[in-house]
Amino acid sequence: MSELVDSKRISLNQITTENWSLQEAIEGCVRNSVPSISIWRHKIREVGLKESKKMVEDSGLAVSSICRGGMFPAKSGSERMERIEDNKRAIEEAAELGTDVLVLVCGPSPHKDIQESRRWVRDGIEALIPYAKEHNVKLGIEPLHPMYAADRSVITTLGEANAMQQSLGSSSVGVIVDVFHVWWDPFLYEEIKRAGGTILGFHVSDWKVPLPDIFKGRSMMGDGVIDIPGIRKAVEDNGYTGPIEVEIINQEIWDQPGDETLKVMKKRFVEHV
Amino acid sequence: MSELVDSKRISLNQITTENWSLQEAIEGCVRNSVPSISIWRHKIREVGLKESKKMVEDSGLAVSSICRGGMFPAKSGSERMERIEDNKRAIEEAAELGTDVLVLVCGPSPHKDIQESRRWVRDGIEALIPYAKEHNVKLGIEPLHPMYAADRSVITTLGEANAMQQSLGSSSVGVIVDVFHVWWDPFLYEEIKRAGGTILGFHVSDWKVPLPDIFKGRSMMGDGVIDIPGIRKAVEDNGYTGPIEVEIINQEIWDQPGDETLKVMKKRFVEHV
Repeated sequence: MSELVDSKRISLNQITTENWSLQEAIEGCVRNSVPSISIWRHKIREVGLKESKKMVEDSGLAVSSICRGGMFPAKSGSERMERIEDNKRAIEEAAELGTDVLVLVCGPSPHKDIQESRRWVRDGIEALIPYAKEHNVKLGIEPLHPMYAADRSVITTLGEANAMQQSLGSSSVGVIVDVFHVWWDPFLYEEIKRAGGTILGFHVSDWKVPLPDIFKGRSMMGDGVIDIPGIRKAVEDNGYTGPIEVEIINQEIWDQPGDETLKVMKKRFVEHV
Repeated sequence: MSELVDSKRISLNQITTENWSLQEAIEGCVRNSVPSISIWRHKIREVGLKESKKMVEDSGLAVSSICRGGMFPAKSGSERMERIEDNKRAIEEAAELGTDVLVLVCGPSPHKDIQESRRWVRDGIEALIPYAKEHNVKLGIEPLHPMYAADRSVITTLGEANAMQQSLGSSSVGVIVDVFHVWWDPFLYEEIKRAGGTILGFHVSDWKVPLPDIFKGRSMMGDGVIDIPGIRKAVEDNGYTGPIEVEIINQEIWDQPGDETLKVMKKRFVEHV
């Protein structure tokens, strides 16, 4: 792999420009020569799937992924079934919008038995595999930073995601590596190696000190402590050379004009990814 | 081990009443029948070691630990040497104040190579072992939550702390289990088992949703999602039956009268630990 990142691999994860509608985000990407976009479901909902599909097709943009499926744990079996049904809708949306990657944010635990919730996550993904396969969509298990274990995802390390992927043993399931979530992990490079061939996405942002917020805690690449090029090279060496999503949840960045965000992120991408 | 916690095991980690001086904290413990205290070094500094020792001895309180040594990583060898010297002072303070436990918060990385910083931590602890042994003080490696990896500790999991303890192979080195830092870990119970016989301290608080803050993020036991009794039982089953420190860094709790904090924490201790 080359030392420098290929600037054409950049993709706008739509949450980075949360104040933009899907139409605005698509136009912003076209205007700023960002070739690819990751689309969030709440933005699809605003205009409907049919209209979303038309916008994407008219723009010529590639869709790197749909965010997000998941949220599997729930106390009752019927609630867990509803979550699985909702994930089927997400799979359909991914297929319709022309991407083969559905990012899974696996969900928090509804009680104090976090290990039971982890089993529910596994059961939920397992139940989705036939439907995903039928639609040519892959399910990307994204481990989230352990600080989100209580409210977003009981899957907290790449090691866990890999173990789940391997135990499910399906080519329809892979993992997502987001530097913000995994950079601190002492076994990161071993686990990236173990994930070889199953990595479905690579997300970048940075960990600034002090962290500006918990949920809206991510910063622009170059503003923090993460060795992003080191992680990128490891991911590439283990088989992932697809789009690289810039995914930044940060109020200050949301509040600035989207075009400014896209300009800065393009510059930082070649300098710091 | 009994199902219910022995209320006599409670210890006030002094950071929980950060607005109190050492004298006030000692008097507060005596007044509220809290038999044990963990003393912070910045509080010792305010009055000096000699006076601190006198206060502790006069009170009849036990000292469960001194917080904190550590902070090993630094760019230059001379800086790292200074940190080791400072840790020797901490060992002396522990010995003088009558505790055999020095808690180590291992420190953040001064650069993006977090693995090198982890090696510096190991080197620093190794250099301290003879001095610790001489003073009959044990060094407790406390893994901190990964959200502190950038600014407080590159040691982020009990697995890492155990690996370091085992590689050092000294009875002067052990680990500290703090529920706030480790509750999310998918390998928590395996690692508590692995730590059997080397656990030097057990700290409690809770993880409230949403988290009130990053640094001042801890809550009173019972206000969050952590299965504290489950973790306590695992720690007991693996040989630790010593004092249990209530360590809560929380602005709202700091701002209330210390006596109120001690009353609530005693109640919550028997109900939720």
